[in-house]
Amino acid sequence: MPPSLQSYEEVSSSLPMKVVPTKNGVVNGASSLQLEETEKHDLVLRVFRCLIADLCEQFKGGHPGGAMGMAGIGIALWKYAMKYSPSNPNYFNRDRFVLSNGHTCLFQYTFMHLVGYSNMTLDQLRSYHSKRTDSLCPGHPEIEIDGIEVTTGPLGQGVANAVGLAMAEKHLAATYNKPNYPVVDNMVFCMIGDACLQEGVALEAISLAGHWRLDNLVIVYDNNQVTCDGSVDIACNEDVNAKMRACGWNVIDVFDGSNNISGVTQALVTARASDKPTFINVRTVIGFGSKLAGDAKTHGAAFGPEDVANIKRTFGMDVDKHFYIPEDVYDFFHEARSRGQDYEREWNALVDAYSREYPELSAEFKSRVAGEMPQDWMKQFSDYAYGVPEVGWACLQPLAQNLKNFMVGTADLTPSVNMVWKGKEDFQHPDLKTACGINGSYRGRYIHWGIREHAMASISNGLAAYNKGTILPITSTFFMFYIYAAAGVRMGALQGLQCIHIATHDSIGTGEDGPTHQPIELAALYRAMPNMLYIRPCDSEETAGAFIAALNAKNTPSIISLSRQNLEQYPAHSSRGGVQKGAYVLMEQEDADVTLIGVGAEMCFAVSTKEVLEKKYGIKARIVSFPCQRLFEAQPREYKREVLQYGKGRPIVVIEAYAVTGWERYADAGFAMSSFGHSLPGATCYDHFGFSGKNIAPKVKALVEEVREVGIESLRGDFRDLNGTLGIKTEH
Amino acid sequence: MPPSLQSYEEVSSSLPMKVVPTKNGVVNGASSLQLEETEKHDLVLRVFRCLIADLCEQFKGGHPGGAMGMAGIGIALWKYAMKYSPSNPNYFNRDRFVLSNGHTCLFQYTFMHLVGYSNMTLDQLRSYHSKRTDSLCPGHPEIEIDGIEVTTGPLGQGVANAVGLAMAEKHLAATYNKPNYPVVDNMVFCMIGDACLQEGVALEAISLAGHWRLDNLVIVYDNNQVTCDGSVDIACNEDVNAKMRACGWNVIDVFDGSNNISGVTQALVTARASDKPTFINVRTVIGFGSKLAGDAKTHGAAFGPEDVANIKRTFGMDVDKHFYIPEDVYDFFHEARSRGQDYEREWNALVDAYSREYPELSAEFKSRVAGEMPQDWMKQFSDYAYGVPEVGWACLQPLAQNLKNFMVGTADLTPSVNMVWKGKEDFQHPDLKTACGINGSYRGRYIHWGIREHAMASISNGLAAYNKGTILPITSTFFMFYIYAAAGVRMGALQGLQCIHIATHDSIGTGEDGPTHQPIELAALYRAMPNMLYIRPCDSEETAGAFIAALNAKNTPSIISLSRQNLEQYPAHSSRGGVQKGAYVLMEQEDADVTLIGVGAEMCFAVSTKEVLEKKYGIKARIVSFPCQRLFEAQPREYKREVLQYGKGRPIVVIEAYAVTGWERYADAGFAMSSFGHSLPGATCYDHFGFSGKNIAPKVKALVEEVREVGIESLRGDFRDLNGTLGIKTEH
Repeated sequence: MPPSLQSYEEVSSSLPMKVVPTKNGVVNGASSLQLEETEKHDLVLRVFRCLIADLCEQFKGGHPGGAMGMAGIGIALWKYAMKYSPSNPNYFNRDRFVLSNGHTCLFQYTFMHLVGYSNMTLDQLRSYHSKRTDSLCPGHPEIEIDGIEVTTGPLGQGVANAVGLAMAEKHLAATYNKPNYPVVDNMVFCMIGDACLQEGVALEAISLAGHWRLDNLVIVYDNNQVTCDGSVDIACNEDVNAKMRACGWNVIDVFDGSNNISGVTQALVTARASDKPTFINVRTVIGFGSKLAGDAKTHGAAFGPEDVANIKRTFGMDVDKHFYIPEDVYDFFHEARSRGQDYEREWNALVDAYSREYPELSAEFKSRVAGEMPQDWMKQFSDYAYGVPEVGWACLQPLAQNLKNFMVGTADLTPSVNMVWKGKEDFQHPDLKTACGINGSYRGRYIHWGIREHAMASISNGLAAYNKGTILPITSTFFMFYIYAAAGVRMGALQGLQCIHIATHDSIGTGEDGPTHQPIELAALYRAMPNMLYIRPCDSEETAGAFIAALNAKNTPSIISLSRQNLEQYPAHSSRGGVQKGAYVLMEQEDADVTLIGVGAEMCFAVSTKEVLEKKYGIKARIVSFPCQRLFEAQPREYKREVLQYGKGRPIVVIEAYAVTGWERYADAGFAMSSFGHSLPGATCYDHFGFSGKNIAPKVKALVEEVREVGIESLRGDFRDLNGTLGIKTEH
Repeated sequence: MPPSLQSYEEVSSSLPMKVVPTKNGVVNGASSLQLEETEKHDLVLRVFRCLIADLCEQFKGGHPGGAMGMAGIGIALWKYAMKYSPSNPNYFNRDRFVLSNGHTCLFQYTFMHLVGYSNMTLDQLRSYHSKRTDSLCPGHPEIEIDGIEVTTGPLGQGVANAVGLAMAEKHLAATYNKPNYPVVDNMVFCMIGDACLQEGVALEAISLAGHWRLDNLVIVYDNNQVTCDGSVDIACNEDVNAKMRACGWNVIDVFDGSNNISGVTQALVTARASDKPTFINVRTVIGFGSKLAGDAKTHGAAFGPEDVANIKRTFGMDVDKHFYIPEDVYDFFHEARSRGQDYEREWNALVDAYSREYPELSAEFKSRVAGEMPQDWMKQFSDYAYGVPEVGWACLQPLAQNLKNFMVGTADLTPSVNMVWKGKEDFQHPDLKTACGINGSYRGRYIHWGIREHAMASISNGLAAYNKGTILPITSTFFMFYIYAAAGVRMGALQGLQCIHIATHDSIGTGEDGPTHQPIELAALYRAMPNMLYIRPCDSEETAGAFIAALNAKNTPSIISLSRQNLEQYPAHSSRGGVQKGAYVLMEQEDADVTLIGVGAEMCFAVSTKEVLEKKYGIKARIVSFPCQRLFEAQPREYKREVLQYGKGRPIVVIEAYAVTGWERYADAGFAMSSFGHSLPGATCYDHFGFSGKNIAPKVKALVEEVREVGIESLRGDFRDLNGTLGIKTEH
């Protein structure tokens, strides 16, 4: 059990505060530092709260309430508890701070300004909610801004990101630290509001953090008991502390978080010595100082000039001064820059000494810090013989085995997704002893995510964001269940975080599990998603190409979409190089009457349709393999026209067991799915929905004949769904 | 605190079992019924487990382990605890059973067979995993099958569905029950495995069930501590009982759930008298009887003939008999049919008496039971003046106020989505007293979902599935956050459950909240999703049309996609009738040079582009409003060609601030989004991405000129992205 609040309050005013002790009670930094006088804290609190009110008032919008309530927490974090360096926001061993309640972004921006992040000027603060496109103060924190670790805003995501950041630290520390050389020992502080504790993705991530005993992770809960609809108890009456303890967390209460900076600081410092992740439950008052304090109305709207004046009067500030920050407040935080430079200097010295004692390990460490991919990764491909049916495994296994930046996980589908490599070690707390005997350590690079697809994706974003290029997360589950993870996958694309999602069991070939497991429409989402490569290879050679494309996309996540069933192989035709261009001619045919687009597991039907067309109807068909629309769009127009031969005036038919959405750009007709699937064995299921050369060929023949008769122009604007278009249930 | 296990075991063998008492201790049914002899239970258990092994063996696949482990739970449910009628699976006041661990479907199918659901023959059981398209035994339970309440399979969904079913009962009971007339008093039993407790959607739903104190809800946890990857402790080490208690649930432990039918039955019966939802934690052994019992290998594969023989020997059964069910086993369950008919008869008599005493209320009740929509709902539209900017509210408010089947909720965005009507009452436990003073009762029809979008959608499926047409759930949040809810929304579409999702703040017009809140690609998912209407109206008249279309779609969920900002109104042009056809000519123009497709909030840019084209360039443009692709696809080909005028050889340009995916079917070019958005005020954001007539018109002009010069044919297969095509981050 953690110490009770009472003990904090008793000790907090008398004890000297230890700032930034390392784990295990070793003190690092100024051991004799005490908290500043209460008057200084009060001045900062008053100035900060008035500033927030002004910043929301200027453009009549924004989120003032949370930031004002959290002011004291901010002082505890940036003045006392966190290790960071304003003059080098990317200093490697910094504590990571995540604002999961991202709408309170002014909280973070303002403290960044006060402690001296040089880009975060007062002028920039005033750009919040302005029309300025160069603003560094968007409505939610964005990773592109110096000092922001992850983009947050969609609630709950930040909690998962923080778990990923904490895992990354644990893994790197276990891999590289040596006695007396804690080259990686940062903490992760994650600020949340009431909402984050309701989102499923956060609940999944909290469960995992407890399981892994991530003692370097601290959630600071801004418990103001207010959400948009009113008081939290309108939708939530849990015993949150008991719930967190049940999930394996330490819990510390702080009751007067609006003012009790000493209590919050003590809790933060105590959390560093915990053997579990720590949940600090800080009671605050939303909109502290406003006449609406404690009311949901202070959440997401400006106060109006009258209340802003009232707030200033309440805090003894000049009503006519706006955006006012006296020098005393800057002075209060002045040491932050030099302290940060000290941290950097100390760390650099530590790494230098480490390099002398462990030259090989430190070389690898420095390469990881530099975010470098081991240079011989392409070798893993050239060494490996393809043409095997288990395509995903065949590609991933040698990569994962040899490249230490790979962290590979699955949402409880190890036997199905088949990503395990020889000698893999699980990422686990080293003391864990499971009933099944599969254990691991923090050095492990194989992650059992449990049945938590959303957290898997969102935590992976945190792994990737720890330091760009240091860790390459690989996730895996059935493609259908990336619909659970979609919000997390999107946040990775938005942030430009490389991550490879291995989505197996795509299409209706998944079979007996039925329509709940057969993706029909999901590819449309990922093909439309900006900065995402959705790659659907047709055989193992193309799967190699998919991995190469995904590995080369340093600022873009990828989904590699694989089938459950073993696929035909096209060794004389398929090409990993072709995949890099998104689409290419798989089987050329002079004077073709029609171009067939084949995709992924349904390539076999394009090939059998071509055969039937030729043998039975004397119609010549060529086949384009089209694994990735996004990569194809990046090609020169000439290449695109050459592959698809629009100029020749021949029809183009796409064959894929998905909704046809998006293919209309390339094809005149599609043999696709317009309904959900059916529980049948995979091959039977394809047959049930008409996927066979025998069934498709006559439909293509009719199209070819129509074009011969009335010309290709008749197809413009009249896309043909060769497999029905119902799409709405008319009966039940 | 619930009674401990010990007390159950002490009493279970001596006490007479009360079967199906109603709430509050009133006994209903055979009060003196005792449990059958242990020998009879044992026979059923042995026969059941061998049958499951045979059913998976015949086609060498399926999920035997869970079903075998849960055999005893099944006896407790179908023999003793549940109120149902095999001869009328839809008997209104039946207890609802949800198999959230849907992969164990043979568990449910087999018990349905044994208790006498007439369609569920032994022949049907043997169709599991077969090639038979008429199988009633798909790989996961499907709602279309008599006796199945909801389609399950994607893990966690069933838990949320069950919460919805329980809410529906609570709401109907509070609305229609009278003293001595409990016309609605069923329970909901939800079976789960280890996985469901890890999924975020279930955790959200569990939190809500505790909040609402749904004492009619029982989760039966098949705690076998095994998932695909191994033992559960590989990814989860929570104190699940403590977590459930913290969420407001009663917890009952049963330790030997593989055999202790008395203990499980006692727990189920006790749960009926709880004042909270009940979590029964039943320890079982997966694959009980197999040599692999307790191992993950028994989860999702057949045992092989050797182990099947071993299982039969272990249970003293004839190794050479397959699919063997002795008459004794049928006899054991024989009473289920007549008992069910008794329940029906009693309920019908109760409703008859109720009708005599409360003729008006009972008429309404019967109409709800019949699933009838109040016939005058269209009147709410004709009565209301449109043209107001707050379009969603203007439509919904009179409907929600007057139609008692509407249950309207929001994921904590009451002030933003604006769905509250005068006199609304919240759905809440009647004893709840919130800090903000907003309370309610189970009669309430306004739902505060908290910040739980996924549970909102999935629980709403349960509300809709309680009895088709009795409750029409309306959900609401920002459109972007329907990405959190996508798996739930999909399950509604798959099941043909009418539900209206009001998605506000669509498009980049959302503004300052930035790219995390601005949907770009999400519409592509919902436009591609089978059996889903994604409707994006351009003004309040079209919003009325959207509601009419959604209300008429009795077997199809809809998303009505609305803007944050106030929109231009087109009273001389827009048409609610036009919306029913998906697209229609908003502004006709003879001899037009180009057709502009305008959509939703971006219609204003189509109109301003038309104006600039005409005034500045002398180019004539017509405008098609296109709120719903799915509805348009359902129109006759002639109508479609008339609206879009393909025959005229003039280009068509779509204007929408989304990814253009899908519009290529209708347009030759698009002015759309190829990147994520930007945090800027809404109008500035549109401007930033080039959305203005002034910017779009010259690009359209160039296209028109190209077509004049080289002909419309040049556009085929060369869709033009008039607003850029980057889509991949090349730098960071």
